[in-house]
Amino acid sequence: MSGTPVWSVDPRTGEQRAHVAAEASAADVDAAVRAAHAARGALADRPTRAAFLRSAADELDAAREGIVAAADAETALGAARLNGELARTRTQLRAFADVVDAGGFLDVIIDHPDDAIVPPVPDLRRYKVPLGVVAVYAASNFPLAFSVPGGDTASALAAGCPVVVKAHPDHPETSETVLAALRKAAGAHGLPDAVVGLVHGFDAGLALIRHPLVAAAGFTGSVRGGRALFDAAAARPNPIPFHGELGSLNPVVVTAAAAADRADEIGAGLAASMTLGVGQFCVKPGLVLVPGGGDGDRLVDALVRAVAATAPGVLLDHRMRDNFLAGTAARLALPGVDAPVPAGADGDHGVRAGVLTVPADLLAAADTHDALLEECFGPVTVVARYADDAQAHAVLDRLPGNLTATLHVSPRESEGAGDVRELLARLTELAGRVVVDGWPTGVAVAPAQHHGGPYPSTTSTSTSVGTTAIERWLRPVAYQSTPEALLPPELRDANPLGLPRRVDGRREG
Amino acid sequence: MSGTPVWSVDPRTGEQRAHVAAEASAADVDAAVRAAHAARGALADRPTRAAFLRSAADELDAAREGIVAAADAETALGAARLNGELARTRTQLRAFADVVDAGGFLDVIIDHPDDAIVPPVPDLRRYKVPLGVVAVYAASNFPLAFSVPGGDTASALAAGCPVVVKAHPDHPETSETVLAALRKAAGAHGLPDAVVGLVHGFDAGLALIRHPLVAAAGFTGSVRGGRALFDAAAARPNPIPFHGELGSLNPVVVTAAAAADRADEIGAGLAASMTLGVGQFCVKPGLVLVPGGGDGDRLVDALVRAVAATAPGVLLDHRMRDNFLAGTAARLALPGVDAPVPAGADGDHGVRAGVLTVPADLLAAADTHDALLEECFGPVTVVARYADDAQAHAVLDRLPGNLTATLHVSPRESEGAGDVRELLARLTELAGRVVVDGWPTGVAVAPAQHHGGPYPSTTSTSTSVGTTAIERWLRPVAYQSTPEALLPPELRDANPLGLPRRVDGRREG
Repeated sequence: MSGTPVWSVDPRTGEQRAHVAAEASAADVDAAVRAAHAARGALADRPTRAAFLRSAADELDAAREGIVAAADAETALGAARLNGELARTRTQLRAFADVVDAGGFLDVIIDHPDDAIVPPVPDLRRYKVPLGVVAVYAASNFPLAFSVPGGDTASALAAGCPVVVKAHPDHPETSETVLAALRKAAGAHGLPDAVVGLVHGFDAGLALIRHPLVAAAGFTGSVRGGRALFDAAAARPNPIPFHGELGSLNPVVVTAAAAADRADEIGAGLAASMTLGVGQFCVKPGLVLVPGGGDGDRLVDALVRAVAATAPGVLLDHRMRDNFLAGTAARLALPGVDAPVPAGADGDHGVRAGVLTVPADLLAAADTHDALLEECFGPVTVVARYADDAQAHAVLDRLPGNLTATLHVSPRESEGAGDVRELLARLTELAGRVVVDGWPTGVAVAPAQHHGGPYPSTTSTSTSVGTTAIERWLRPVAYQSTPEALLPPELRDANPLGLPRRVDGRREG
Repeated sequence: MSGTPVWSVDPRTGEQRAHVAAEASAADVDAAVRAAHAARGALADRPTRAAFLRSAADELDAAREGIVAAADAETALGAARLNGELARTRTQLRAFADVVDAGGFLDVIIDHPDDAIVPPVPDLRRYKVPLGVVAVYAASNFPLAFSVPGGDTASALAAGCPVVVKAHPDHPETSETVLAALRKAAGAHGLPDAVVGLVHGFDAGLALIRHPLVAAAGFTGSVRGGRALFDAAAARPNPIPFHGELGSLNPVVVTAAAAADRADEIGAGLAASMTLGVGQFCVKPGLVLVPGGGDGDRLVDALVRAVAATAPGVLLDHRMRDNFLAGTAARLALPGVDAPVPAGADGDHGVRAGVLTVPADLLAAADTHDALLEECFGPVTVVARYADDAQAHAVLDRLPGNLTATLHVSPRESEGAGDVRELLARLTELAGRVVVDGWPTGVAVAPAQHHGGPYPSTTSTSTSVGTTAIERWLRPVAYQSTPEALLPPELRDANPLGLPRRVDGRREG
């Protein structure tokens, strides 16, 4: 470890725990990428890839205690949450192993020659091939599920792409520990270590996105960091796909009828969702449109009671804590903004959750309150009180893109009464996932999941959670008039691998 | 027409034919985009969209004579080619109508709640929705099939996206004529004119890509123009997908055994492919690796005879003619380059096709001959003579990304003998379509088609030809825990629209 030391830091004390790695030099990054590139052939066999992903899940389980201990010491997220996150991480790895086995992601399409079409169709067979080395930028807030062994890594490996992860500086020891488990799994199937690489350091992250052999990137983090990397990816001599999840306000709309029906339930549910994980989820509800009047007041009272009763927490690092304290203070200083529960410091290292309120017309009218329309990472939400539907719509018109949008309605509205369908259509334009009568936190790993939305929530139209995430790391290739013996087995008429496919317009399997 | 006049010019004479339009001002572009955005709701109904696309094909047929006459006068491509291109354009529109009807592009996935998974899966239903207004940048070389009524327009409309086309300056009258036919078809189904807009002018093209309500773009053209627009799309406050087809060398490799077997046939086939449409196809074979020695000599002789016998032609405009003459002269001036058939001027307006030859080691060794690895638009190809397989591979190692790569083999190699599988794998890394024992020109419209490849051939991993091109203009949205009555009909359990879908992991329909 000859480079600048990388320290593991305990956010509960602010103290350096250990010197666990060194920042990668440009030469280190180059070596990691070249090794990964050279390892891509080893990932070509689908059954081996699937077995590797399942073994990776098993190895994470076997190393669970050490992983959770390291992650808790580095992130303060607590053992219960981290055990749950590790279970989620294993679910993801196994789900992608199943996807690899099923083979539908190869999207095999075969068209036999047809001279009746203008222009004539020759023998054409298309499937998808891996893009090449994928750079993964790990997130702070999920040291496992969106980090070294997370969804980007799992989906890229499933696609057949070697991965080089840029470690998040908040959990270097966790990253190294998990890497060892992944490489143990790789070794068990004869795969080289380099199918998963790891580099530390800010400059290493930039060198990685600019490396000629890096073919695509996945990122979860801030708008500022993500946009800088997106710009670097776009500015390359050969631009590459950059699938970044940057930031999201995750608006919630509570209809007047919903507030009348369920003020207490919604207020309490909102408090639980916005303080979950000390408010450090990318889908934390950050702006809530609540009707004015008595029903809305009751909802806010329930929210305020629950948030005020929430235990203080520790954020992932002190920089985030500084940003949270400054961000909540700056928002509270805006005209018309109140804090029925003020966010703030708890001792030297902790924070207290808070609620901000503002009349919706201040958000709708001008750009003076735009800070309230930006994500504030941590346990705080903004409640905007609207006088009528027009005011609520005027606020929605000013929102950027989001990962999620949530709607709370009354049972009568669930049957389709009122303008609630129109409201749902409006929220659909704003987000990639629309939640009704629930909360956006808790992102299931499922085929129908979509975790992505209009910019800045993501920089592409794809998802980073759920099995369709594999699509990000593939490109189609068509073979024309290619003799059977030269075709990849996936594209042969006899279908020796038993793949689902579309042949002359008909689906098989 | 108050702006700078847009003239229709006859490339056969260089003379202005008529003043057919005016360049769009920033205000004109804004009005066109806003009108298109306002028209998006009208495209929401799938059966109407499908009917519109079929009527558009019919209207193009009805207006065929006028369209072909205008296009021939503006492009010099000739009535036979243009009638064929119009037929192709109709095929595309009808193919996308069928895609719209079938509904598979909606990619419906439904997962019912499952508490056994970690984390638990709620009710999740995902499908794809249109992105919004699509900007289409028309190509010069296909005044119909890659222009106003072309594949980008057809696929975007099929997806439910209104389109604003930036007309190519080489065929403004054709563009306006075709627009009228498309709008007639739209009107027949009660759709507003603004579902397809048209703007002229270089500045209008830039204003279009920067417009906040433009949600995605499709482009076919040069590396320089495409990269400038790609950069503008990436630099927006909210970056948008830019699906550009920029430039492609389309390498061909002839094995020693193939040359021994079929020297005359391959030479003649290459001549036909590289001079087709006066060499103005994006998939024109621009670099051909031919073995040294007698068999290769015979192949080159056959090529030279056929090219020398090819009638002179007229390029799409005089700027392209200037570039062709300068480009071929600059390549011929490089050390070691010969021209057994010199490209050149034919009179004041025409050009003669040419063949350049070069020893492959000059291409493989250094960057002195890199101009030969760049596309030269027009009827010329570069034949690189290789001494051994290592030399051929060394040239391939220096190539940028391509739309196509072509391999000519002997029947014995078709059975899998020799290293030909390895060669095919290498070509697959370089291109989006691999052709064996054929030629890349003639791009069929089919589900298995893929017209796209590594940069600079395209700026994304998607295709601009074939039915999967619709995927470019969609984004997924998931609905969570949404009451049946509020769900879009596409996502209801009862499947009232009879869509193919995946429910709890099982494919239906």
